[in-house]
Amino acid sequence: MKAVVYNGPFDVQVKDVPDAKIERPTDVLVKITATNICGSDLHMYEGRTNMEAGRILGHENMGEVIEAGKAVDRIKVGDMVCLPFNIGCGFCANCERGLTGYCLTVNPGSAGGAYGFAGMGPYSGGQAELLRVPYADFNCLVLPPDAQEKENDYVMLSDIFPTGYHATELAGVKPGDTVVIYGAGPVGLMAALSAQLRGASQVMVVDTHKDRLALAEQLGATAIDDTEGHGAERVLELTNGQGADCGCECVGYQCCNMHGKEVPNLTMNNLVKTVKATGGIGVVGVFLPEDPSAKDALAKHGQIAFDMGKFWFKGQRIATGQANVKAYNRKLCNLIQAGKAKPSQIVSHEMRLEQAPEAYKSFDARSAGWTKIVLRPGK
Amino acid sequence: MKAVVYNGPFDVQVKDVPDAKIERPTDVLVKITATNICGSDLHMYEGRTNMEAGRILGHENMGEVIEAGKAVDRIKVGDMVCLPFNIGCGFCANCERGLTGYCLTVNPGSAGGAYGFAGMGPYSGGQAELLRVPYADFNCLVLPPDAQEKENDYVMLSDIFPTGYHATELAGVKPGDTVVIYGAGPVGLMAALSAQLRGASQVMVVDTHKDRLALAEQLGATAIDDTEGHGAERVLELTNGQGADCGCECVGYQCCNMHGKEVPNLTMNNLVKTVKATGGIGVVGVFLPEDPSAKDALAKHGQIAFDMGKFWFKGQRIATGQANVKAYNRKLCNLIQAGKAKPSQIVSHEMRLEQAPEAYKSFDARSAGWTKIVLRPGK
Amino acid sequence: MKAVVYNGPFDVQVKDVPDAKIERPTDVLVKITATNICGSDLHMYEGRTNMEAGRILGHENMGEVIEAGKAVDRIKVGDMVCLPFNIGCGFCANCERGLTGYCLTVNPGSAGGAYGFAGMGPYSGGQAELLRVPYADFNCLVLPPDAQEKENDYVMLSDIFPTGYHATELAGVKPGDTVVIYGAGPVGLMAALSAQLRGASQVMVVDTHKDRLALAEQLGATAIDDTEGHGAERVLELTNGQGADCGCECVGYQCCNMHGKEVPNLTMNNLVKTVKATGGIGVVGVFLPEDPSAKDALAKHGQIAFDMGKFWFKGQRIATGQANVKAYNRKLCNLIQAGKAKPSQIVSHEMRLEQAPEAYKSFDARSAGWTKIVLRPGK
Amino acid sequence: MKAVVYNGPFDVQVKDVPDAKIERPTDVLVKITATNICGSDLHMYEGRTNMEAGRILGHENMGEVIEAGKAVDRIKVGDMVCLPFNIGCGFCANCERGLTGYCLTVNPGSAGGAYGFAGMGPYSGGQAELLRVPYADFNCLVLPPDAQEKENDYVMLSDIFPTGYHATELAGVKPGDTVVIYGAGPVGLMAALSAQLRGASQVMVVDTHKDRLALAEQLGATAIDDTEGHGAERVLELTNGQGADCGCECVGYQCCNMHGKEVPNLTMNNLVKTVKATGGIGVVGVFLPEDPSAKDALAKHGQIAFDMGKFWFKGQRIATGQANVKAYNRKLCNLIQAGKAKPSQIVSHEMRLEQAPEAYKSFDARSAGWTKIVLRPGK
Repeated sequence: MKAVVYNGPFDVQVKDVPDAKIERPTDVLVKITATNICGSDLHMYEGRTNMEAGRILGHENMGEVIEAGKAVDRIKVGDMVCLPFNIGCGFCANCERGLTGYCLTVNPGSAGGAYGFAGMGPYSGGQAELLRVPYADFNCLVLPPDAQEKENDYVMLSDIFPTGYHATELAGVKPGDTVVIYGAGPVGLMAALSAQLRGASQVMVVDTHKDRLALAEQLGATAIDDTEGHGAERVLELTNGQGADCGCECVGYQCCNMHGKEVPNLTMNNLVKTVKATGGIGVVGVFLPEDPSAKDALAKHGQIAFDMGKFWFKGQRIATGQANVKAYNRKLCNLIQAGKAKPSQIVSHEMRLEQAPEAYKSFDARSAGWTKIVLRPGK
Repeated sequence: MKAVVYNGPFDVQVKDVPDAKIERPTDVLVKITATNICGSDLHMYEGRTNMEAGRILGHENMGEVIEAGKAVDRIKVGDMVCLPFNIGCGFCANCERGLTGYCLTVNPGSAGGAYGFAGMGPYSGGQAELLRVPYADFNCLVLPPDAQEKENDYVMLSDIFPTGYHATELAGVKPGDTVVIYGAGPVGLMAALSAQLRGASQVMVVDTHKDRLALAEQLGATAIDDTEGHGAERVLELTNGQGADCGCECVGYQCCNMHGKEVPNLTMNNLVKTVKATGGIGVVGVFLPEDPSAKDALAKHGQIAFDMGKFWFKGQRIATGQANVKAYNRKLCNLIQAGKAKPSQIVSHEMRLEQAPEAYKSFDARSAGWTKIVLRPGK
Repeated sequence: MKAVVYNGPFDVQVKDVPDAKIERPTDVLVKITATNICGSDLHMYEGRTNMEAGRILGHENMGEVIEAGKAVDRIKVGDMVCLPFNIGCGFCANCERGLTGYCLTVNPGSAGGAYGFAGMGPYSGGQAELLRVPYADFNCLVLPPDAQEKENDYVMLSDIFPTGYHATELAGVKPGDTVVIYGAGPVGLMAALSAQLRGASQVMVVDTHKDRLALAEQLGATAIDDTEGHGAERVLELTNGQGADCGCECVGYQCCNMHGKEVPNLTMNNLVKTVKATGGIGVVGVFLPEDPSAKDALAKHGQIAFDMGKFWFKGQRIATGQANVKAYNRKLCNLIQAGKAKPSQIVSHEMRLEQAPEAYKSFDARSAGWTKIVLRPGK
Repeated sequence: MKAVVYNGPFDVQVKDVPDAKIERPTDVLVKITATNICGSDLHMYEGRTNMEAGRILGHENMGEVIEAGKAVDRIKVGDMVCLPFNIGCGFCANCERGLTGYCLTVNPGSAGGAYGFAGMGPYSGGQAELLRVPYADFNCLVLPPDAQEKENDYVMLSDIFPTGYHATELAGVKPGDTVVIYGAGPVGLMAALSAQLRGASQVMVVDTHKDRLALAEQLGATAIDDTEGHGAERVLELTNGQGADCGCECVGYQCCNMHGKEVPNLTMNNLVKTVKATGGIGVVGVFLPEDPSAKDALAKHGQIAFDMGKFWFKGQRIATGQANVKAYNRKLCNLIQAGKAKPSQIVSHEMRLEQAPEAYKSFDARSAGWTKIVLRPGK
């Protein structure tokens, strides 16, 4: 089968590789119809992780089930399914409480596994024609009859829509709240959409990319251009100097200041500053325990110079981590089916699998207009 | 009246000062019968805050109501009352949600007021014969008939028992959980007591002071002596390498390593290390937005070098801040009255008000056996 | 001043009565600009309560503060305020936890007080030119600068918007949920609006009044006409036979079947039937502890023949009671101000105070098109 | 193998039946070492259900794994395991949210399956030498090394300890709360134990059986003898006329008044009466959708004459249903292992499997001293 293979920093290639196949009786095999490139794929693409050369990328996947293992009960051949990027076993202490992003089974010695991801277990990615799905009864979200018609919406259930929603859940967004979101990338935009769905009274999105800020406005948010570095002050102005009720971090450790320099504590300390006393902060942007190639001395060891005193004095809360996709994907699927959520509106490019190398290159350059890319194997 | 007055760093004095009195129709006047010295009084005592010379200290107060303002409805002369250290108005956006530690009324321009505290408004403290209590209907906890008999228990409802409990609430302690607590001072010990009340299966308390660790054992906790700096490893051993379900920070910005050197990020990073993935961390130890006299460069600006990458990767949560005492004091009072909680067991010294200077000196020196001091004005 | 006075069953009159005035230092006096007639006013109007003749009706009130007691700190003369229908003291065990509908102070011997309401204390209603507001700092919601422009929206914050919202809160409505609401009266319509704000994927409203069902459709809900008695079956059809995730009771003890006969257990048992196993049910429709004039034998004693077996077997939850208005009114106010909620869209009639008798008559007759009446004293 | 077979009303027999065996690759086979008789077994024993003759009873089971299906990953031969009485698939919409008592897979057309239970699917019970356990990776709780030493404690994790705990969870018991429990049978006693673990300040248990009330006292509860029918008044006296903060129903549809007559609405209406306004009520006693052999006309159709008016007026909550055992069993297991919970203290009889018929007879007669029976197959 054809697949997008990671060769090394800034080098991905579409290659012929052995077909994915059923390996255990609880697996299914899925023919991928749509698979996205994610911002976190770029961490690997840029060589900022310990990703092994030769592995297949891709953790935002949907497709059609073409074969099912003997112990699979619920999932049937022919089902259209969307796969959560994180793989759960369904029976460990974390999975049984819904913390599927921290499965204790699928990636022994760590907590959490994923398709095609550095440090998240041996699972191949889905930027390919076929994908093996472990613990299929647990992991597959069976899609409604309009699965093909709304493919660009449903594929977002694999990661960024639940991840954006998770940011708002971690932050505790409730109807009537004001929300500030740092980052207008795909996840930040999905957080904005989610905050709207949860009934926020005002959603502010801070970024420096004008094309992405325009999308935030389309989603009903107030775009705040941080190009001059005044974004945080603007948030305070809009909230009577008190700060927002809730805040979301949707950038991660590579957050940059207005000069494009990585300033790893920038978004976190801005959140402390621009969220009100007693407010909640949700962090879904990735921060790494080690980042040897970082220029910042603290960042090399995964640390930031954090405004702990202000944070404590304001009595705020921070909750973090990857989204437990299964905690949200059924209900978000309902909203798509009912026409109340349309995450596909941020898709900028639909491309063939073969075009993956150019897609990675343009997306990594944050070229204007490259917001979200859907690859379509077999087309 | 006699009162404990702050003269300057390491200098408190019992002086004759003008009597406290009713100033507004919603006030009551309380004759203090018991008032504690708190670890946070030491921040002021040591000159690590901007406390003004001449002010009366003391925020852990109880006593008898001897006069009530004309608009006071609920509180009657003769009531024995315990006063939450933080003063709330009862009607602002925070108080009405129970966030009385972040009252927007009593200390304009900030969130939260307290008796006799730096930066917490103009209110005199209760290490004195008399105390003016604002918004008395809202702030007074009327004590049960056994108020005098269990005075050393009920006075703990003013601060440290609710504060210790708050740590466990912020951390999300549930029945059957394992809990690690950094700090065996009065607040850490109250956190241990609270974790027991909440049904924890194991409570581990980490400190270097042997007398305090002995008290932790008395409370049913597992004492972990960090004198050699192996405390965190010991917690991991006791939790199968996973870390505890929940963790509590009960030390604050002056936390010290095994050599007695202030290492402001020590407890926070140890919590990230020794709490399990997806676990909760509650921080009630005080961290300051500015600490000009700190030796650590980051600490001067209220920052710590925080293990953000590990924290995010483990998907943990941190919640912080002073306890909203009123959120807990009624129910904790019930437990004292029912004989199910006995916070007085950590009281090491009962002294006359006049002995306050020597009490401050010994307590600040962490002299062995000086755990908790109750002052008794008028005795 | 002029006021709407209850003379007896089916008899209200606009009379000259002594002016309302400040009685205690914590009161304010409000010149009423808008005051609604509520469905629960009809319980009194119809003589189904023990309302005393001669009392002033009206618990949905807003207006301008024209005088403030000496102990009032926050509220100023000139403030435009909306008053929660339930009166709280702000300092009892219930108020301090936000349960302001169950205040233990304002109506001794019971839990909860209200303006102009049978059994809810001695407080006069606001269908009048002036209203005395007790514990004003606690009870007044100060409105934003657009208070007059959006008067028909903000006045709904006194009762029906928070009450409808409370139904969805009690039922536990979360984004993506399906919700069934019994009753398309003003409260049911506000529940539908609230369910939309909370991100429900489908909102079904069951009633027999076509004009009200049309309003439900306007609010984006699926209207289900129960004229033939097939409403419950229709809900099951729309939810794959499983029932809705959540259900709301917005009718109360006078609920009627398709023949207009009072069948007091109709809505409750339909909710048990049409909400899924493990689902939540919120009940804001009023049920009375005694209803001597009821025809049904059980109803006389406030009982219904309840499907306890099905309820238990399905593992459902029911939560009940009047809304704690203050728990919601600030955030719902934000949504009105931000233009994201427009509860005024259900207002059918704006009338002068003098027209109250005819308004009561038509509203009580459920005349087509009489959904919600706003009275404007002084106009 | 030998097994306890239901022949018909009041007739069980220990028979030789075909050995239980692995039927699907996700099954394990367990050699039962301890299996209890449950109060709900008596519903079947008395012929009050549609239980089929010939089926094996027993849903409170533990034992040793002696064979594992090919798709089982986590559970190993030799593991000592305790089995939740309700069987879950682990992957349906309910199981994935932890609602394992309402599994949508194992008992198609209903919600929830169990071993050896009327209406809960085709699964054989564990009052036998061997038990087939479906979806073993999901359903088995692997016990700690002291499994055999504390067998009488751990076997309670199959049902009554989690069920009693569930009652307190549904009722929302928090530290410092007062709790009233109706029923001092095994489940009521476990609810009392659970309320203590959760930090209740007072636990009141109402029953008419003196031997069981004595056990309640042993557990630290206040026993209230309802023999004269004054139990509810006594609860009000002990709670200053307000009622308890929380209440638990641990009897079910066969609740009897002081004359031993079934009065199906007795406990529910007493709960409404003796729980405070705004309080929570948890119902784990079984109520049946149909009870054709009931004498009460409403009860035949699963209805009770419920005090809806008082319930609504007090703004109470009721939550119901069987315990989702897996939601609690890990943490309760920790408490047993740590020596902080000892549910075995209510075991009155340990008997051989062959003695099951006499055990059923005495237990059904509520003979004094027959509180809880553990059967030991193979001994």
